[in-house]
Amino acid sequence: MVATTALLRDLVAGWRRDGLSVGLVPTMGALHAGHLSLVRAAAVENERVVVSIFVNPLQFGPGEDFARYPRDLGGDLEALDGMGVGAVFAPRLEEMYPSGATTRVRVGELDEVLEGARRPGHFEGVATVVTKLFWAAQPDRAYFGQKDAQQAALVTRLAEDLLTGISIRVCPIVREPDGLALSSRNAYLSAAERKAALVLSRALSRANEACLAGEEDPGRLRPILQRELAAEPLAEVDYAELVDPADFRSPGRLAVLAARFGSTRLIDNHLLGVRFETSPSG
Amino acid sequence: MVATTALLRDLVAGWRRDGLSVGLVPTMGALHAGHLSLVRAAAVENERVVVSIFVNPLQFGPGEDFARYPRDLGGDLEALDGMGVGAVFAPRLEEMYPSGATTRVRVGELDEVLEGARRPGHFEGVATVVTKLFWAAQPDRAYFGQKDAQQAALVTRLAEDLLTGISIRVCPIVREPDGLALSSRNAYLSAAERKAALVLSRALSRANEACLAGEEDPGRLRPILQRELAAEPLAEVDYAELVDPADFRSPGRLAVLAARFGSTRLIDNHLLGVRFETSPSG
Repeated sequence: MVATTALLRDLVAGWRRDGLSVGLVPTMGALHAGHLSLVRAAAVENERVVVSIFVNPLQFGPGEDFARYPRDLGGDLEALDGMGVGAVFAPRLEEMYPSGATTRVRVGELDEVLEGARRPGHFEGVATVVTKLFWAAQPDRAYFGQKDAQQAALVTRLAEDLLTGISIRVCPIVREPDGLALSSRNAYLSAAERKAALVLSRALSRANEACLAGEEDPGRLRPILQRELAAEPLAEVDYAELVDPADFRSPGRLAVLAARFGSTRLIDNHLLGVRFETSPSG
Repeated sequence: MVATTALLRDLVAGWRRDGLSVGLVPTMGALHAGHLSLVRAAAVENERVVVSIFVNPLQFGPGEDFARYPRDLGGDLEALDGMGVGAVFAPRLEEMYPSGATTRVRVGELDEVLEGARRPGHFEGVATVVTKLFWAAQPDRAYFGQKDAQQAALVTRLAEDLLTGISIRVCPIVREPDGLALSSRNAYLSAAERKAALVLSRALSRANEACLAGEEDPGRLRPILQRELAAEPLAEVDYAELVDPADFRSPGRLAVLAARFGSTRLIDNHLLGVRFETSPSG
């Protein structure tokens, strides 16, 4: 395990001198099979893999779950054991945000809608920490999950806009056998909420069936999502939209959902027309 | 000469594989002896030097001089000839700002005062382009002139905040024998304005003499600057302040000046108490 940027940089510089390629998997820890699928993808494409574990305060809003976000470094290291990870980068807060650090990175437009509109400052926090992790690890490739679709799109644009030369790989959502998308926040759910949360994947699956059956009009697919969600009394829907995956703004084939189950806010998404897989793909 | 990020990246990666150190000198072209002193400093400390030449539209405000800013790529290449520069990176606009690029970098607090307050968006433009150039060249060291003191401080903070690992070197102001700080914008001055502009270095020099004679109170040094500037009818003073070089906000020993001579806005500065040199140091 590596705790400082200086040590990580030295390690990576050594790999580079040896001509080895480097993949970065940025995480906030509490690793589940979704994260591990990213690590596996990175290990296939790169000679060395860096997994970062850092719960980034800057991407949590004032009323959000920064304090109670699950942390389990011991369990995370155990989960990564034997996966061929070259370095686990687990910096302390002061390492990532030295006192007086005022530099912020913002990806305009994409950060204004959906998750960006509901969570002010969230994507600025993501863009800033990702830029720092990119500098600290200087990878050839970086791996993000499609589960956070808007984040993945935003990071892809950031990597291009800033001329980083880093290739962003977006890996498929990993789901429980019953369809629930894996998330570290699933741990917050009561048994009843856990059951109710299945409405997300069910709604996506229903809309996808309609799409595969020939319905391509977002104006007709959207009500399918909404009808399904409305039928679940424990779901407090935040949004259910069909957007263009290029801008998350104009109408398109990407179905994106956000809903609260008790105090737990979950998101899910699916590109309609593509087979909906409910079993883990790892 | 290299025009694309991809080619520059390949070139630098090759140098890195050979274990060579890399220095970057970012410029907007119209190179003068001040720029060349940066190139010399870079050549001393690094095995390979990259000079970038790019007039960055993002750091010019709506009413500013982007269109008429001096451009002379042929003359610049000639000036660099024989200086041991490994690559001149002269990208086109679309290379630095591909259509749809919305990512912006901001260095908070430092960008709010003095130049930042007078030129809204200027420092966001600087921080964004510098971050891109840093990614494109991935240097060990980057060289900036003390002439743009606030920019140098801001870039130093950016490089630390974003964990770039790049060491920022700030090189002394180069002046004409009569004291005028070198600037590409000096070319705009009429003969009368050129003469009037000497008031900047004269004011700094007078305040410096007082400081060297024992006066250390910014509250007494500032009137010396103001008195000197007020005596020059062609100078329209923008600011004349004594600030802490750490934050450009609290009172301190760095004298910073901005004034307009006709339509040309010039800046100058000096850390009081340090010998004031009026002849080129290169």
